[in-house]
Amino acid sequence: MAASALFNHIGLLAAFLTTFSFLPQAVLTLRTRRTDEISLGMYLMLNLGIVCWLLHGLKVDDIAVILANSVTLLFSMPILLVKVSNVLQGRD
Amino acid sequence: MAASALFNHIGLLAAFLTTFSFLPQAVLTLRTRRTDEISLGMYLMLNLGIVCWLLHGLKVDDIAVILANSVTLLFSMPILLVKVSNVLQGRD
Repeated sequence: MAASALFNHIGLLAAFLTTFSFLPQAVLTLRTRRTDEISLGMYLMLNLGIVCWLLHGLKVDDIAVILANSVTLLFSMPILLVKVSNVLQGRD
Repeated sequence: MAASALFNHIGLLAAFLTTFSFLPQAVLTLRTRRTDEISLGMYLMLNLGIVCWLLHGLKVDDIAVILANSVTLLFSMPILLVKVSNVLQGRD
């Protein structure tokens, strides 16, 4: 019963998990400010990709895509900004 | 012209960028094996979330969701495995 209810909402669970997965990394990175093991390439591509998802969501008028990617951007952008700041200041 | 062509395919570009963004992080993490700035919580939630996306894709028979998440899992799973290995061996 519980397993079948879970499977019925597997898409929602998937969206929740992948969206909020970036929260603990954002907290860790904002707290420690250390990013030399964090890939600049990853967070450049990721943030640009999320902006493209937002544009796609606006284009096809899909509120789920717009909402999920707005939240993800909120978490992934600070990670990119700390990384870029460390790279520019020669720390990474 | 080029900008309008880009906007027509903004969803594909978004999928490509977010999927392949994990490749440079996987390469960096597999090369250095250092993960103490990498959040365990993030990669646990992310990998579990991607598995849920795969199940969702199989459920609704969406080949794009299945394909994109298979590729993402291929890059995100090694990052999680290196992190878990470091945690279990007391390095992180």
